[in-house]
Amino acid sequence: MDRKACTEAILAAKASAGLTFAELAEKVGRHEVWTTAAIFGQAQMDSGEAEALAESLELGPEVTAALQQNPMRGSLDDVVPVDPLLYRFHEITQVYGTTIKALIHEKFGEGIMSAIDFELDIQRVEDPKGDRVRIVYNGKFLPYRKW
Amino acid sequence: MDRKACTEAILAAKASAGLTFAELAEKVGRHEVWTTAAIFGQAQMDSGEAEALAESLELGPEVTAALQQNPMRGSLDDVVPVDPLLYRFHEITQVYGTTIKALIHEKFGEGIMSAIDFELDIQRVEDPKGDRVRIVYNGKFLPYRKW
Amino acid sequence: MDRKACTEAILAAKASAGLTFAELAEKVGRHEVWTTAAIFGQAQMDSGEAEALAESLELGPEVTAALQQNPMRGSLDDVVPVDPLLYRFHEITQVYGTTIKALIHEKFGEGIMSAIDFELDIQRVEDPKGDRVRIVYNGKFLPYRKW
Amino acid sequence: MDRKACTEAILAAKASAGLTFAELAEKVGRHEVWTTAAIFGQAQMDSGEAEALAESLELGPEVTAALQQNPMRGSLDDVVPVDPLLYRFHEITQVYGTTIKALIHEKFGEGIMSAIDFELDIQRVEDPKGDRVRIVYNGKFLPYRKW
Amino acid sequence: MDRKACTEAILAAKASAGLTFAELAEKVGRHEVWTTAAIFGQAQMDSGEAEALAESLELGPEVTAALQQNPMRGSLDDVVPVDPLLYRFHEITQVYGTTIKALIHEKFGEGIMSAIDFELDIQRVEDPKGDRVRIVYNGKFLPYRKW
Amino acid sequence: MDRKACTEAILAAKASAGLTFAELAEKVGRHEVWTTAAIFGQAQMDSGEAEALAESLELGPEVTAALQQNPMRGSLDDVVPVDPLLYRFHEITQVYGTTIKALIHEKFGEGIMSAIDFELDIQRVEDPKGDRVRIVYNGKFLPYRKW
Amino acid sequence: MDRKACTEAILAAKASAGLTFAELAEKVGRHEVWTTAAIFGQAQMDSGEAEALAESLELGPEVTAALQQNPMRGSLDDVVPVDPLLYRFHEITQVYGTTIKALIHEKFGEGIMSAIDFELDIQRVEDPKGDRVRIVYNGKFLPYRKW
Amino acid sequence: MDRKACTEAILAAKASAGLTFAELAEKVGRHEVWTTAAIFGQAQMDSGEAEALAESLELGPEVTAALQQNPMRGSLDDVVPVDPLLYRFHEITQVYGTTIKALIHEKFGEGIMSAIDFELDIQRVEDPKGDRVRIVYNGKFLPYRKW
Amino acid sequence: MDRKACTEAILAAKASAGLTFAELAEKVGRHEVWTTAAIFGQAQMDSGEAEALAESLELGPEVTAALQQNPMRGSLDDVVPVDPLLYRFHEITQVYGTTIKALIHEKFGEGIMSAIDFELDIQRVEDPKGDRVRIVYNGKFLPYRKW
Amino acid sequence: MDRKACTEAILAAKASAGLTFAELAEKVGRHEVWTTAAIFGQAQMDSGEAEALAESLELGPEVTAALQQNPMRGSLDDVVPVDPLLYRFHEITQVYGTTIKALIHEKFGEGIMSAIDFELDIQRVEDPKGDRVRIVYNGKFLPYRKW
Repeated sequence: MDRKACTEAILAAKASAGLTFAELAEKVGRHEVWTTAAIFGQAQMDSGEAEALAESLELGPEVTAALQQNPMRGSLDDVVPVDPLLYRFHEITQVYGTTIKALIHEKFGEGIMSAIDFELDIQRVEDPKGDRVRIVYNGKFLPYRKW
Repeated sequence: MDRKACTEAILAAKASAGLTFAELAEKVGRHEVWTTAAIFGQAQMDSGEAEALAESLELGPEVTAALQQNPMRGSLDDVVPVDPLLYRFHEITQVYGTTIKALIHEKFGEGIMSAIDFELDIQRVEDPKGDRVRIVYNGKFLPYRKW
Repeated sequence: MDRKACTEAILAAKASAGLTFAELAEKVGRHEVWTTAAIFGQAQMDSGEAEALAESLELGPEVTAALQQNPMRGSLDDVVPVDPLLYRFHEITQVYGTTIKALIHEKFGEGIMSAIDFELDIQRVEDPKGDRVRIVYNGKFLPYRKW
Repeated sequence: MDRKACTEAILAAKASAGLTFAELAEKVGRHEVWTTAAIFGQAQMDSGEAEALAESLELGPEVTAALQQNPMRGSLDDVVPVDPLLYRFHEITQVYGTTIKALIHEKFGEGIMSAIDFELDIQRVEDPKGDRVRIVYNGKFLPYRKW
Repeated sequence: MDRKACTEAILAAKASAGLTFAELAEKVGRHEVWTTAAIFGQAQMDSGEAEALAESLELGPEVTAALQQNPMRGSLDDVVPVDPLLYRFHEITQVYGTTIKALIHEKFGEGIMSAIDFELDIQRVEDPKGDRVRIVYNGKFLPYRKW
Repeated sequence: MDRKACTEAILAAKASAGLTFAELAEKVGRHEVWTTAAIFGQAQMDSGEAEALAESLELGPEVTAALQQNPMRGSLDDVVPVDPLLYRFHEITQVYGTTIKALIHEKFGEGIMSAIDFELDIQRVEDPKGDRVRIVYNGKFLPYRKW
Repeated sequence: MDRKACTEAILAAKASAGLTFAELAEKVGRHEVWTTAAIFGQAQMDSGEAEALAESLELGPEVTAALQQNPMRGSLDDVVPVDPLLYRFHEITQVYGTTIKALIHEKFGEGIMSAIDFELDIQRVEDPKGDRVRIVYNGKFLPYRKW
Repeated sequence: MDRKACTEAILAAKASAGLTFAELAEKVGRHEVWTTAAIFGQAQMDSGEAEALAESLELGPEVTAALQQNPMRGSLDDVVPVDPLLYRFHEITQVYGTTIKALIHEKFGEGIMSAIDFELDIQRVEDPKGDRVRIVYNGKFLPYRKW
Repeated sequence: MDRKACTEAILAAKASAGLTFAELAEKVGRHEVWTTAAIFGQAQMDSGEAEALAESLELGPEVTAALQQNPMRGSLDDVVPVDPLLYRFHEITQVYGTTIKALIHEKFGEGIMSAIDFELDIQRVEDPKGDRVRIVYNGKFLPYRKW
Repeated sequence: MDRKACTEAILAAKASAGLTFAELAEKVGRHEVWTTAAIFGQAQMDSGEAEALAESLELGPEVTAALQQNPMRGSLDDVVPVDPLLYRFHEITQVYGTTIKALIHEKFGEGIMSAIDFELDIQRVEDPKGDRVRIVYNGKFLPYRKW
């Protein structure tokens, strides 16, 4: 079973079971963002996590196996995504990129924010003028090595 | 004075004055991220903000004028940035894009996070295993209009 | 049933039923442009709308289900469309883009026209020298947030 | 004087004279959108229009001459614009392109909306929930020739 | 039956029937270039034309129906075609484009040659030094609208 | 003097002399299309032609020299031109490319139309419904060599 | 049978028959390079050549027919090939292109080397320091037509 | 003096001295192709070669120095060249690439033709039907290393 | 059996057999990097190697045959890989490319590192601060030929 | 002084001083690869390093200042480099990318080799059959964070 078919099988089972990503994450024992990323083929589950997920959706061992593969990451079909929700993240990088670089440098010195030793959180913040999406990137600062 | 020359003049004056973006932001009366974005030509200052910035760096009226232009946004030279710090943001969109879309949909329904009614914050979080970069995106949820 | 197959099934049923988009829209209870966009997988119907559409074309529950998915938007196969009708819209953006930006700025200040809180209308205007296509974009003005 | 320098000279003179595009259009005797397009090098003025514009801004004969050139059209630097305001028009074409094609075909038959025998209008529509941008495309329907 | 399969079915039937495009065009009652374009999915036949073509090749009603679809135009797989015969047309546009623009402007004023109200003819011209291909583009001049 | 500067010098001198391409071509003793192509740096003049052109515009020997260079051909800045007049030629290749290939093959067999042993003509054809642009491509048929 | 399937059928039959391209070429009565090009769908065989090839590999009439099609040329999947052997030819064009242009011009005047009236030969040249690949391009010089 | 300016200086001096590449090559003591490549910045001369070239054109020591730089190779401005003479080489790679790969493999086994241990020759071959360009690629066969 | 299916068959058999690349390499009698590259279709095995591999995984003769094909090399789907592990190698070339060129030139003179007469090794280096990946490129220096 | 001008000033001074990168590195007190990278604008020197370098080349304080800037990394002009030496590194990633991914995964588990906590070494290895280039990548293994 390839990774794409695995994702589709899980999404279909999730829809018919009427479960949320948050509920699946609880069964897996991981954060809902990480669990969702693993479902979309962007992270590798260990056998316990994969079995918990497959069981909660009554899926078979080929799903359990596929979830433990070392995935080829990159979930988008295009270099610049066309879907409006996804495009806004490209736009933020384009507009605020130089600002982020200048401020990380001022606060930390020469280095980058890791996208590997990295966590992502997504929250709904209530607001009388219209609720807001709050996304938190949290990555280890990696200083450039000098040698 | 075009917007690029304005940015360079400010960065040079900031360097010789030994001021940080945080200190300039305080003089402008805005958050350091917004102020830095305006310095990099990605936001438009009003006359009070522009004068406060120019004065604090002893720059002339052509800087004050340029900071009040309606900018052509987009601060990067390439569609996919090559600089490692900037590229990581492209990578996060590529890897976590489908995850973010699925979770915003589950939490909010059909719509997007605005990149216009939007704030950005960058923090240094101390951590004994290595300090961490924490970046917060905060954008209004915009539901798709049906008609 | 994936979204593309759903679109094809609806278009085939519409052709053999001899119904127009306007007639389908009336059954759905929405504007013909929005209804057509939903048929092409660019908007999400609620269950009542999806059932009304499927019933009027005697299509089954897998169509009803597909119409309620959260769609991955972007209906064109290429970044720059080759079809002459579609290309003209790309051309208008290329030719009149700077004009539109300058005039929105002059009339509204710093901000953009939303493509989410947005309506589109298409009309045929009779004209003795040749009828004309009239397309109306109507989007909420979104001012840039300062913080 | 090349066309780009001509645009810059006009925009600078307009800014220091404190005139709007609407006011310049009135002096030229044309619609503000067409006048703005001509200022940005996307339309060709005749000598009367060019002189009226140059005079109202106290600009010299090289501006008058440049405004009468046959312009190389296309006002954007990139195939897909990065500036958020401009990008939204690309997004609308991507999301609603197939819808527009299907509805023009249903209303008119085989053909396209001309982008040459074409007018554009931009209006501010007041709305208590936030003012709206209204943009009207009006192009002659051109049926495909059969031979 | 999708448009591509329709084209393949016609080309196969044409080959086994040993008919030329010119002979098919005569049965359809149209010019051979237009008829060939319709066969390749680049023009829309009416029911009489479609039936005449299908009958002359003993093809069924699904071909007749497909020929009456509103086609998504653009017959090449690549932006710049690789096949040498097709590439030469791209080359001619690249090499003679500015010349054509300057001369159309000199002869007609501001406007373009329509590619919609447009005819194409292809002829073999005998020449003792080697026969020549003669291709005639004939499109209505469309002046830019001023408003 | 590089070739681009040479083109600009000629166009400026032509404008102030009030001469047409047709008049310049007559002085050069060549067809107006070829002469215009040479002016735009897409053909190489011999010394007699170059001198005739330079003299008729009162330009100096560096123009005469530049016109005799072996030019790097390709007059457009982009692979796909944005200017509407130029784009239509790209569109014609996209839409009618497969048709042209099929008909040249049927009329001539395996080979191509040369773009080197090639002539181009542009005419204004009067028409009560609107004058028409008539462009004639005339290139030697080159059969593929078999060996 | 489409052209790609035809190529695959021939390569499979050639492998199981243990024949070389040189041996097949001898049966066809053509040079091994031309024969190989025809096998890869880059040249059109006549009926005698196609039958000789099909017979020598015991392939059926659908192969004979496919070999006589007018092929859509261009044998590579990418604009710039990734396979190291193929890439070297792209590299030679990039590195020696301006040199080749200057020397053809010096030796022949204004014109090009035809890629249609063109032969290609590939030889193994023994050399004690390591055998060498010798590839000969032989194309008719085509002078630019003046008119 | 950068490498591009060096090339231009040599070409200008060569033109006014009325020397051919072949004559310059003789003074340098190298083949005319290699010498031309070095003039176009695609090969590195040693001091004797550089001095011989500079002297024969009465150019100064900054030319001598520039010719001894380690050049950044790649003489074309575009990935796919637009100039017709240069494009033909891209076309040959596209059309004959798979043929060349198959025949090198059959004659040599696994490996490539080097573009570094490589010579290029260009000859004019007289032919009563029109002279021909003969270009010889001669590169060492490099077998893939197994380890 | 095409090369891609062969790779998938081997990876599936390897997974169910619980063998590592190192163990397979030992059976093949080659280095684990070369063996892995051959498995991924980037090198050509001889019959002994192919049989050893197929036998150790209990795969049939079509796998043995496929492993002996002359492969079309290039293992990535995109010009710039999106997967973070793969992208880092692109980044290293972008960041350190000019450095590597300058130092190879200083140490060796004019030439390149071969990617054909080339070996690659990958090691795990233990480090108390976190183990390190050590990758060694070892390619023959190829001096540019002068002629 | 911008970073590019700084690189050029250093390379010019290095050439006239007759110093190698290794000698400059010794004065700076860093490895020759890191020092060369810093000279090419790909790493940030501290004040001691910058002064040591500037002094050893008798360059002024604007060089010292430029070397301490936070650089925008990415030293190549093109996404895929054309220069043969640089291209080979792109080729190695294309050919061996999947191999490297599979072996890092087998040896380390889920994660990547850091390109930030990373060292690079370049050596000349003598070999009777032709000296070899040995390049060592040494980067910290970063496991993906789970949360």
